[in-house]
Amino acid sequence: MTFNIVLAGPRGRMGRETIKMLTKNTSDFNLVACIDNKNGGKKLKDLDSEFFNLEIPIFENPLQCFEKVNTNLFLDLSVTNASFNNSKIALQNLIYTVVGVSGLEHEQISQLAVEAEETQTGCIIAPNFSIGAILMMQFSQKAAKYFPNVEIIEKHHDNKVDAPSGTLINTIDLIKKVRETITQGSPQESENIIGARGGEVDGMRLHSVRLPGLVAQQEVMLGGSKQMLTIKHESFHRESFMEGIQLALKEVINLKTLVYGLDNFIE
Amino acid sequence: MTFNIVLAGPRGRMGRETIKMLTKNTSDFNLVACIDNKNGGKKLKDLDSEFFNLEIPIFENPLQCFEKVNTNLFLDLSVTNASFNNSKIALQNLIYTVVGVSGLEHEQISQLAVEAEETQTGCIIAPNFSIGAILMMQFSQKAAKYFPNVEIIEKHHDNKVDAPSGTLINTIDLIKKVRETITQGSPQESENIIGARGGEVDGMRLHSVRLPGLVAQQEVMLGGSKQMLTIKHESFHRESFMEGIQLALKEVINLKTLVYGLDNFIE
Amino acid sequence: MTFNIVLAGPRGRMGRETIKMLTKNTSDFNLVACIDNKNGGKKLKDLDSEFFNLEIPIFENPLQCFEKVNTNLFLDLSVTNASFNNSKIALQNLIYTVVGVSGLEHEQISQLAVEAEETQTGCIIAPNFSIGAILMMQFSQKAAKYFPNVEIIEKHHDNKVDAPSGTLINTIDLIKKVRETITQGSPQESENIIGARGGEVDGMRLHSVRLPGLVAQQEVMLGGSKQMLTIKHESFHRESFMEGIQLALKEVINLKTLVYGLDNFIE
Amino acid sequence: MTFNIVLAGPRGRMGRETIKMLTKNTSDFNLVACIDNKNGGKKLKDLDSEFFNLEIPIFENPLQCFEKVNTNLFLDLSVTNASFNNSKIALQNLIYTVVGVSGLEHEQISQLAVEAEETQTGCIIAPNFSIGAILMMQFSQKAAKYFPNVEIIEKHHDNKVDAPSGTLINTIDLIKKVRETITQGSPQESENIIGARGGEVDGMRLHSVRLPGLVAQQEVMLGGSKQMLTIKHESFHRESFMEGIQLALKEVINLKTLVYGLDNFIE
Repeated sequence: MTFNIVLAGPRGRMGRETIKMLTKNTSDFNLVACIDNKNGGKKLKDLDSEFFNLEIPIFENPLQCFEKVNTNLFLDLSVTNASFNNSKIALQNLIYTVVGVSGLEHEQISQLAVEAEETQTGCIIAPNFSIGAILMMQFSQKAAKYFPNVEIIEKHHDNKVDAPSGTLINTIDLIKKVRETITQGSPQESENIIGARGGEVDGMRLHSVRLPGLVAQQEVMLGGSKQMLTIKHESFHRESFMEGIQLALKEVINLKTLVYGLDNFIE
Repeated sequence: MTFNIVLAGPRGRMGRETIKMLTKNTSDFNLVACIDNKNGGKKLKDLDSEFFNLEIPIFENPLQCFEKVNTNLFLDLSVTNASFNNSKIALQNLIYTVVGVSGLEHEQISQLAVEAEETQTGCIIAPNFSIGAILMMQFSQKAAKYFPNVEIIEKHHDNKVDAPSGTLINTIDLIKKVRETITQGSPQESENIIGARGGEVDGMRLHSVRLPGLVAQQEVMLGGSKQMLTIKHESFHRESFMEGIQLALKEVINLKTLVYGLDNFIE
Repeated sequence: MTFNIVLAGPRGRMGRETIKMLTKNTSDFNLVACIDNKNGGKKLKDLDSEFFNLEIPIFENPLQCFEKVNTNLFLDLSVTNASFNNSKIALQNLIYTVVGVSGLEHEQISQLAVEAEETQTGCIIAPNFSIGAILMMQFSQKAAKYFPNVEIIEKHHDNKVDAPSGTLINTIDLIKKVRETITQGSPQESENIIGARGGEVDGMRLHSVRLPGLVAQQEVMLGGSKQMLTIKHESFHRESFMEGIQLALKEVINLKTLVYGLDNFIE
Repeated sequence: MTFNIVLAGPRGRMGRETIKMLTKNTSDFNLVACIDNKNGGKKLKDLDSEFFNLEIPIFENPLQCFEKVNTNLFLDLSVTNASFNNSKIALQNLIYTVVGVSGLEHEQISQLAVEAEETQTGCIIAPNFSIGAILMMQFSQKAAKYFPNVEIIEKHHDNKVDAPSGTLINTIDLIKKVRETITQGSPQESENIIGARGGEVDGMRLHSVRLPGLVAQQEVMLGGSKQMLTIKHESFHRESFMEGIQLALKEVINLKTLVYGLDNFIE
């Protein structure tokens, strides 16, 4: 069976990378149209010289798009609100749907779940497409059961504004679910320079490094008696998300309900 | 319930470390006797000045030991053949048994399994007590499903004779069970200096570093599109095995059959 | 004083990166012309859409170029033979010259040295513009005096054909100059899997890792009694060479002779 | 020439390690006596079963010691004040002196310098005997000239009370002497969890990790354009200081004045 894909969000960085992947790919995936909040009536080749040979049409109205082109798979990489609307219409039209935005509200997710359930149409919401990062988080969570002394260092380029990163916060949240609460470090511990021991959540310590030259990495360190277990993930480019997008597309077509999180398919 | 432990192999390095742990421990474990192929009739305090205050008796004959002392838990850290014999007798006497030697033959393991089954007495054979190393191997195996490009570097002190280490070989064996067979590296690849690309098993590359200053560590690197996942375990002292021994002792008393490998209890 | 630069090799990857740097740069450097073995008479904007606003003229004949444009600084990033010829003419015209190609023969270097000497015009030949890699090599060399047990791991993307890398070989060569010759590892050492202990030069061991996801890095490990010193350089993009090119351009204008190697300016 | 050494501080951890080294050593060093603030009249074998075969005498009075035994080399590993007194008397008796304590005051150092000068007797004060740590600091200082974006992570066992470590503070002090002052990180940077970005000195960021399983290590990271240079030192045992003590002993006998810091001999 061939899958004809519609992609929303062709101008974003993830969208562009995905277009390259889908149109290079020799697999069953076949990009047939894009949805964009402007550029309706144009073709992909009009958007960017990189896409010079892509005659793929662009629609502004999702319903119109789904009616005009023959599609059975929808991938939304646009922005939160557009994404909710697009995905709802896709599911109502019995089109398998992968939503790759973060920030959907509980109420929106519930509505999409109902839609999927009623139409028996698979839907995956995946705020994180990085298989490597998901594995790192799963491994850290499991290891923390045995080694509850945990410190995390994440390192990013020096233009990053927030510290710590969202991935670090997600990792901590996952670990907290299983980790025995303990006090880490020496009770007499003191900082000669404020901040030296990093941030603290539930006794765990976290550190954010920001340097030019770095891209994005995280290192979870778990200490035991005379041993250390370290789980490290490095990401050098958003191309690293493509493996996760491919996984989501392959999994969604076997579903009849909504599943939240790509981690459910990594077992 | 208090557990009265008999330990075989009190003079080995693991045995000595375990004696320290058991006699320091404030938990339910209580070391009541040792089995040794010499020193029968002596006490632990006669073996080493470190044990100066330990009045624990030493037996050469396991059956005699199990009859004389009140015990319900047996831990064998001796050598392969003695271990088989000791453990068989322990199980026949309905004593929970943890065997911490490697090198038991299939036939011997089968016999112990039958003995455990018939007496409904739990037995764990654990050739590796390092929880950290077990986690590293489990994580590597799982990650290799998604990232089949694998290289492993193990680093040890420069007195180590064999290369690669047993742990590296075990890791490779586990990964091979699940990894899609692929060709790694460039097809045009060539070595200007022989051995530069390391050893090779099923396309995976492995490297052994031997330097003074090092103790024991292993690093499993898994490469994907523009991302790297690295799982690293460092062990600084055999004290790191104590957490695994404690886990085995806690688990064996809930068993009625034989289980091979501590990894079965790390889920 | 403003420096008007002529660049040879505008179509190569280093050349393109350098054009971006020089035309972005707010410093005293001012790109006034390029030398190319084709495209004479065209302008940079004709070569690549990325350079759409660069009216900088291209010459095929270096002498003609140096006569037509007002220049005092020449940077050659072309290929070996063209580079020798271009640089000789530049020096004869009293233009400071930085040559960024590897592969010049001894005889060619000697001729350029004579030319520089006679015209009292500074010339730097820099086969390696990576300041980070140069520091790594200098540090490794110095440390090996105190810690002669050395192993090196270099890691590159899996399209790299040669193993080990040129940088690793250069590092080994530098270390050999100062390192006390010793036998590393255990005399009883044996490989269960051929190649596990890596390649060997003068007792030092070297390992090449090739995985997708990696870019380029090298790690020099020096072991002492219960201690390890590790020097690691990671390069993520050829943009990392720009700092070295800037250093060469700033240094050459203070010279009256030829200097081989950027390392001479990193003290 | 044979060197007859007197050692002060035989009961401290460094002292004990050094006794093992000196009495194992097949070199020209020959331990002839110890100075201790108690145990005068006893021998080393009376202090510890480990030294059961060492008939080396212990003195409480340094002057008496230097008069009674034939010595030309004095190594002080005691505590600050005793150390000052011992060393002064050694120098007055024309005995080469290595002082391995930290915490001497400027005034005390000056007095020892005068003593050394007047007697033309070499003296080295070395608050840090770790050659690896000294190299790490020297390399970090040099690299920071080229890569002024610096972050440092030090990792220690979780019984360590102070954060950051003394070595980290020394490293920062050395770097500050040569580093161009810059603002690191994004100007918009903000911490969602207080302390995430670590401590700060002159724009440089520093992080202290405390976990069981760790011994002592420090990692200096220097970021450039698309490149990273990392210098890492790991110490697993105080045995790692022995190489530094040997270096000091070999160097002091060529001196006629006082030199502060072992780094002066590592070039």
